[in-house]
Amino acid sequence: MKEVGYYNGVIGPLEEMQIPMLDRANYFGDGVYDFSLSHKGRIFAFDEHIDRFYRSASMIEIDIPYTREELKNIICETVAASEYEDVSIYWQISRGTCIRNHIYPDPEVKPNLMIMIKPGKTCGVNKRFKLITLEDTRYLHCNVKTLNLLPSVIASEKAHKAGCDEVVLHRGDRVTECAHCNVSILQNGTFRTAPADNLILPGIARAHLIKACKEFGIPVDETPFTVAELMEADEVIVSSSSTLCIQATEIDGKPVGGKDPVNMDKIRNAVYKEFYDFMGL
Amino acid sequence: MKEVGYYNGVIGPLEEMQIPMLDRANYFGDGVYDFSLSHKGRIFAFDEHIDRFYRSASMIEIDIPYTREELKNIICETVAASEYEDVSIYWQISRGTCIRNHIYPDPEVKPNLMIMIKPGKTCGVNKRFKLITLEDTRYLHCNVKTLNLLPSVIASEKAHKAGCDEVVLHRGDRVTECAHCNVSILQNGTFRTAPADNLILPGIARAHLIKACKEFGIPVDETPFTVAELMEADEVIVSSSSTLCIQATEIDGKPVGGKDPVNMDKIRNAVYKEFYDFMGL
Repeated sequence: MKEVGYYNGVIGPLEEMQIPMLDRANYFGDGVYDFSLSHKGRIFAFDEHIDRFYRSASMIEIDIPYTREELKNIICETVAASEYEDVSIYWQISRGTCIRNHIYPDPEVKPNLMIMIKPGKTCGVNKRFKLITLEDTRYLHCNVKTLNLLPSVIASEKAHKAGCDEVVLHRGDRVTECAHCNVSILQNGTFRTAPADNLILPGIARAHLIKACKEFGIPVDETPFTVAELMEADEVIVSSSSTLCIQATEIDGKPVGGKDPVNMDKIRNAVYKEFYDFMGL
Repeated sequence: MKEVGYYNGVIGPLEEMQIPMLDRANYFGDGVYDFSLSHKGRIFAFDEHIDRFYRSASMIEIDIPYTREELKNIICETVAASEYEDVSIYWQISRGTCIRNHIYPDPEVKPNLMIMIKPGKTCGVNKRFKLITLEDTRYLHCNVKTLNLLPSVIASEKAHKAGCDEVVLHRGDRVTECAHCNVSILQNGTFRTAPADNLILPGIARAHLIKACKEFGIPVDETPFTVAELMEADEVIVSSSSTLCIQATEIDGKPVGGKDPVNMDKIRNAVYKEFYDFMGL
């Protein structure tokens, strides 16, 4: 198989996979997910993603009916069913299948586990991003990786229509994050990134960036920064599990960053090296 | 059949219905819905619900590939497939079926239409609600009836666990609405209800309440009211397409309302009478 789907024990070609209409994911977005990349079955930062997945589920009171080891085995078996060497792995748990009713189903209703495997690689170390800015109108649970992603979908489409790669969201002046990445800046030799509160997802790539900064002695400042500071920053960095660490060179049509290439390269190379070394690439 | 499902032309028993894993509703909540009640095939306020459904879809840039008449016929045929006389009708459109990618799919990808029929009646004119209050943490698109309902799901469960029927959400002091109803008050003979901005759903029952007030010469004030005003109101009214017009008698364990029974009865009886008359009940 090429693209692969998994649903509650059944594996098959992704485009042929069916789920019950009554899965609460389908009408409430009542679930959470996580995502990583794999090369030849090696899954990057797997335990970190698994940990975040259990945290997300716990924050919306879904009990995942598998141990971490069981879940990891299921994911690995699904990855192995794809003939692609480089894949993105998406896994989601929903609160279960039942007649639509806002309140939670009876305890005997078991959460649904779903996995989707498709070709996937990082953007690569040479990629540069163009961004637009947009008011952040999302809910106040952005720290939970839920299936309620419509505002991010609409924002991503706006970026795409503008010929850009991502959107920087802001609540008033305060920069929060991108539609599906975190955004950080380098300013006077300091790495600044929004605090991991309820307005941003605690990105795993973001954590790896912070770790790299600390190893290089680059100070890390997790206080909010403004749109004006973003536009004037020495460097603008977009990070996610698929982009890893991408330099942004343009926001709303204006050139940004490019003023601290030494630190930019240090951080980016470290993050990519860690990824490539682990993957054996 | 009893409970009935419909998906892109296929009708079947609701619990057996399957949809593609790759429907964007399933992993992004990328769609909108609407809902009404039916008795013996008569659908209450059908055109108003259909109009709102097209408005919701338009606001998230989904082109419904059916005319209003085609859609109404499909819904009526699905209702007719159920042997129940009194049903709730839920219909949803998603942006289509495709490999997961935030940006919109190619134009040839057709939106998916889904319908779910289950037994459903109004609460009845004698029902009274107990409520809890909760900070409103939802996104800023509450005027669009999307599938991104997780905050409402969690809030509804909190009410249920507290032995209550609904949740009054508020942003700071300002009351917005309930998890799946609008909330209004009577205060010194005036009907007060939050303005139909982006923080509330423009409820169809709410519109019928406003119409009834105008017919009775009860002044209508669509300016926001506070939690304190809610607690001190002469009457607290919860409305939705299934509850129609319900008096709340308790919020957070404290008695509320009950101080303007004349206007409360007038409005409630008018709204229920319109419903029962139309339904032939």
